[in-house]
Amino acid sequence: MGAAALLACDWGTTNLRAWTLDANGRVLADRDFELGVSRLAPGEAARRFTDEVQPALDAEGLPAILCGMVGSNLGWTVAPYAECPGGLGDLARAMTHVEAGAQPVHIVPGMRCEGFTGATDVMRGEETQLFGWLAQYPERARGRQLVCHPGTHPKWMLVEDGRLVRFVTAMSGELFAVLGKHSVLKSDAAPDDAVAFDEGLAAAGEGDALAARLFTARARVVGQGRPADSTPSYLSGLLIGAEVAATPRLLGCQGAEPVALLGDPRLCGLYARALARRGVQTETFDGEAAAVAGLFALHRMGEAP
Amino acid sequence: MGAAALLACDWGTTNLRAWTLDANGRVLADRDFELGVSRLAPGEAARRFTDEVQPALDAEGLPAILCGMVGSNLGWTVAPYAECPGGLGDLARAMTHVEAGAQPVHIVPGMRCEGFTGATDVMRGEETQLFGWLAQYPERARGRQLVCHPGTHPKWMLVEDGRLVRFVTAMSGELFAVLGKHSVLKSDAAPDDAVAFDEGLAAAGEGDALAARLFTARARVVGQGRPADSTPSYLSGLLIGAEVAATPRLLGCQGAEPVALLGDPRLCGLYARALARRGVQTETFDGEAAAVAGLFALHRMGEAP
Repeated sequence: MGAAALLACDWGTTNLRAWTLDANGRVLADRDFELGVSRLAPGEAARRFTDEVQPALDAEGLPAILCGMVGSNLGWTVAPYAECPGGLGDLARAMTHVEAGAQPVHIVPGMRCEGFTGATDVMRGEETQLFGWLAQYPERARGRQLVCHPGTHPKWMLVEDGRLVRFVTAMSGELFAVLGKHSVLKSDAAPDDAVAFDEGLAAAGEGDALAARLFTARARVVGQGRPADSTPSYLSGLLIGAEVAATPRLLGCQGAEPVALLGDPRLCGLYARALARRGVQTETFDGEAAAVAGLFALHRMGEAP
Repeated sequence: MGAAALLACDWGTTNLRAWTLDANGRVLADRDFELGVSRLAPGEAARRFTDEVQPALDAEGLPAILCGMVGSNLGWTVAPYAECPGGLGDLARAMTHVEAGAQPVHIVPGMRCEGFTGATDVMRGEETQLFGWLAQYPERARGRQLVCHPGTHPKWMLVEDGRLVRFVTAMSGELFAVLGKHSVLKSDAAPDDAVAFDEGLAAAGEGDALAARLFTARARVVGQGRPADSTPSYLSGLLIGAEVAATPRLLGCQGAEPVALLGDPRLCGLYARALARRGVQTETFDGEAAAVAGLFALHRMGEAP
């Protein structure tokens, strides 16, 4: 491994994850900070970065590149969205530049597209993982590929010839969280019951009539005596099942084409199970490795003359 | 008007609404109590009824009939569900009988049916409004009629020849409440923006991919600069639009047949607007009048030899 050459950060709503990379993009060190933009006072992102993040990784002398909500109005500075369709080069050209100490800091913009209702859909952070993944697997940049990034607000992304053509955001993760905490479906149980998860998948149908399908999570406990502790697993299966059934169609996909799952491995595993039940092939890729690869690739393009 | 002959109560989760009726079923007096079963200590329903409800309406000497969650395990006593298909007579025969003082108290059971996923769906209270409405409009008891009762957990009910054949429960009202309070869509604004409501209806599509459609409520604010105060109205239109588009199909209806809306007039008005946009005819009927008519009709059947 070489000497540290770059400080790369995925700076999101809740947390900041930072890596130092050598000149070949290999990770030398990493660190998490509870510095998500939702926890910052207005205007303090730069100071917290120079006071806490750089010193913790001995990175005061390194250029830095940041992606995620740090480029929103809650973050360091607004990095205006890059447009879809767009590729890695478009994203690199749209970066916003600030300084920390004497070091340049590149802030990766999010991307936006015209959504299926005409409203603009937006992302900040997932685009860096997507292009990092394409940099890791250049053969994926040929032809067409449907990519799903699960999470609080899952993103379904349609890639053609290495460019993000359009995408759609779902709210399944947040629905799971708020229903599990604040509705008649609330429960403290862990969503670890594979049988109830599959039962939820079966109840998801084609992703239609979700409000009615959700009530079956209550009815199966009240009317059929299923244990209330299995509700979170059932709800997880129902929401993921409904999402994978209906969302690809909003992108003009017919629902049979293979899906690349990119993100948290555990969550990707649930999506893989839901898609397999529909006969859809999947491959899973680690989101963190993709984020690092994306930040490194954008840094190199940003350095190029 | 005659003398008081019956104390009739719709005793729900949150509130208890009581009426005294004369021997012809006409309302003589009414009163609301903050005595919903969710506010009761275990076992105290009978005492609160004799100590508070009967005296407030000078009804100590009257027989009483109660519908709603008072017949659940949170209420006075469990009144086991009547089965679908079933009519007014079946419901009357399934009533549970207790006493308050020396007076008989009839508790109307809820109804249950096999839901579209195989799980048992249940209701407590809406059945009394439904059969009361059929008692008010006997011509509706001929042939087939689709009835929607909006609310926290809206019920869609299929009636054939005066019998409730099957029904399905949605969670739209509760989704509206929890998303408006606990998600990225939260807002304290009133849902009174008719333009945003219609925009939500337009975004509801055929009620598919709801988790993705919900995110458009965020995207239109973040990406298109729509005022955040219009989010509750948009969300209301989106949830009601999705519900009316997709739920009738779960009952085997094709979505074009007329719908009788039964319940709170303001809420029924929103459903009427959503259904009109789809070319579906509606008529709206007052839920309170139907509840009174249902309790009176059940009382008379319960008295019959």
